Amino acid sequence: MNDTFLKACRGEKVDYTPVWMMRQAGRYLPEYQKVRSKLTFLELCKTPELAAEVTIQPVDILGVDAAILFSDILIPLEAMGLTLEFHEKIGPVFPNPVRDRQAVERLIIPDPDEHLNFVLETIRILRRELAQKVPLIGFAGAPFTLATYLIEGGSSKFFFDTKKMMFAEPELYSSLLEKITDCTTVYLKAQAAAGAQALQIFDSWAGVLAPGDFARCALPYVQRIIADLRKSTDVPIIYFANNGATLLDLSKTSGADVLGLDWRVDIAKAVEQLGPDVSVQGNLDPIALLLPEKDLRARVAKILAGGSKARGHICNLGHGIHQFTPPAQAKIFIDAVHELSRKTS
Amino acid sequence: MNDTFLKACRGEKVDYTPVWMMRQAGRYLPEYQKVRSKLTFLELCKTPELAAEVTIQPVDILGVDAAILFSDILIPLEAMGLTLEFHEKIGPVFPNPVRDRQAVERLIIPDPDEHLNFVLETIRILRRELAQKVPLIGFAGAPFTLATYLIEGGSSKFFFDTKKMMFAEPELYSSLLEKITDCTTVYLKAQAAAGAQALQIFDSWAGVLAPGDFARCALPYVQRIIADLRKSTDVPIIYFANNGATLLDLSKTSGADVLGLDWRVDIAKAVEQLGPDVSVQGNLDPIALLLPEKDLRARVAKILAGGSKARGHICNLGHGIHQFTPPAQAKIFIDAVHELSRKTS
Repeated sequence: MNDTFLKACRGEKVDYTPVWMMRQAGRYLPEYQKVRSKLTFLELCKTPELAAEVTIQPVDILGVDAAILFSDILIPLEAMGLTLEFHEKIGPVFPNPVRDRQAVERLIIPDPDEHLNFVLETIRILRRELAQKVPLIGFAGAPFTLATYLIEGGSSKFFFDTKKMMFAEPELYSSLLEKITDCTTVYLKAQAAAGAQALQIFDSWAGVLAPGDFARCALPYVQRIIADLRKSTDVPIIYFANNGATLLDLSKTSGADVLGLDWRVDIAKAVEQLGPDVSVQGNLDPIALLLPEKDLRARVAKILAGGSKARGHICNLGHGIHQFTPPAQAKIFIDAVHELSRKTS
Repeated sequence: MNDTFLKACRGEKVDYTPVWMMRQAGRYLPEYQKVRSKLTFLELCKTPELAAEVTIQPVDILGVDAAILFSDILIPLEAMGLTLEFHEKIGPVFPNPVRDRQAVERLIIPDPDEHLNFVLETIRILRRELAQKVPLIGFAGAPFTLATYLIEGGSSKFFFDTKKMMFAEPELYSSLLEKITDCTTVYLKAQAAAGAQALQIFDSWAGVLAPGDFARCALPYVQRIIADLRKSTDVPIIYFANNGATLLDLSKTSGADVLGLDWRVDIAKAVEQLGPDVSVQGNLDPIALLLPEKDLRARVAKILAGGSKARGHICNLGHGIHQFTPPAQAKIFIDAVHELSRKTS
């Protein structure tokens, strides 16, 4: 198996910089669209053979160095007892938002073997099918990010209700976050036990918080999850606080092996700021994949140069690949990372 | 007239820290809602007497130290020859997005006296009515931000089409930006000539750009506008690159007297980074206005302490006030800034 990705996570020596792309199993690939056309997004998440198939597609088509489980961060929230719907164009919707004590108390901590077995089964299939290929990354949403969906009832622009609870009802907020934290911990433990070889925690909305609020209302829950995971597994853990340029020093205390960087950050500066104890992942602007080949390669070279000073660097986009990206452009990116990093390593 | 705001912009000594709030003339005020209920948003922008009335409301009701013209950054784009609609819940819509050479060539550079006279008339009314009160801020959108609305046809989540043009059709992109820059320059000059005593340039979407792209594709147009304005007016200029934590060093080269800070930034760190040549404006999370009074005042004290090291500090929110904010909470904020800054100055 190509274990370059795992080595870079741990800061071990590699022959070239490993690369994968957030949302690499997704709509920009015609092969994905073909599978997806037969069933809904949620059905695809819950059909292990097909979820495994689309997970492997970018490995075979693009030559990425890691596979990431095809799923969604909201899947375990449904298992907490909530109705979850995906509406075309609108995105995810929780028709019954969690905004009071009663709603928090109704939430259950799901038993992954019972309520989320389709995820674990997907992981087991993938470990067999990826055995000669690349490592498999499992994942979950970070508690703050998951809480925003529950409180807002879906995606949000200003996160008014989330922050309102955080600011005006701090005890209710923390009781909700604690429950999500417990759920996420057992869920990630189960993923590792089923065979996930690395775990990424997506804090997609961390960047809407001022640093002090992040430190008080988001980070402690991530720290607790990671500390708990360390007791039962030694798989590398990646923490990605999206839009988190001002949260880097705090994110470093999360306990993660790898910190994800979004594209707003100058990777060279971030590496200097973070020091030698952590690897980094990122951070091309996903839409910069549309650059002409020469310019795209130049941009990759710059990111590789910035990442080369880190303990370890996993090249990636700074956010999920956009659905209208031509796969050929993604291939230029992946190939450029491999080729240019071999030259300089 | 209370000129504390203007003094802080220029870094002159003040007796207390001046404060105003982005979107302070807006939907959170029942007095605004009453005026607005009689006509559409665009009609309100184009009715000088009423636009002036809502501009003054927060001055009288809350005691802010500056008034900002009630208008919208998209107003001059309509005057460039485009259809602009405001849809409830969706926001602004340009039914005919600007995505090719022909569309760019069709754009006109409006004569403010002819096409935007309602704005200038509003400013003239306001200068009379505010004469014994506070200074009046005029404003415009920054070229990159304005371009996103034209190219996307409205608000956007990923700015795919904007970045696509930027990355794949750089000449088309720059010809569009140059035209918007020319329009914005004459528009801001006209505002200053009509009596605006400070000018703010809102780069609401600057934060979706990687620093290198901001430096190449957004900042130069802002620099050009400010340099041109300096030739004919000495009013203070505020540049606000929203979500721009990683763009601060670059923003400092914009030529502005004051840099706006969004709430993601630690103001003390930003001031240290920016040095003694520029004033700062910001930066409370607007939704932190929902904090209990004691906590809100503590947060204001922290921002004042951070801002006190700057050449000048204008207290403000880090983004526009949210429509569901109780005015009484906004009043606590304004009063706390005045009271706490008098103690320490």
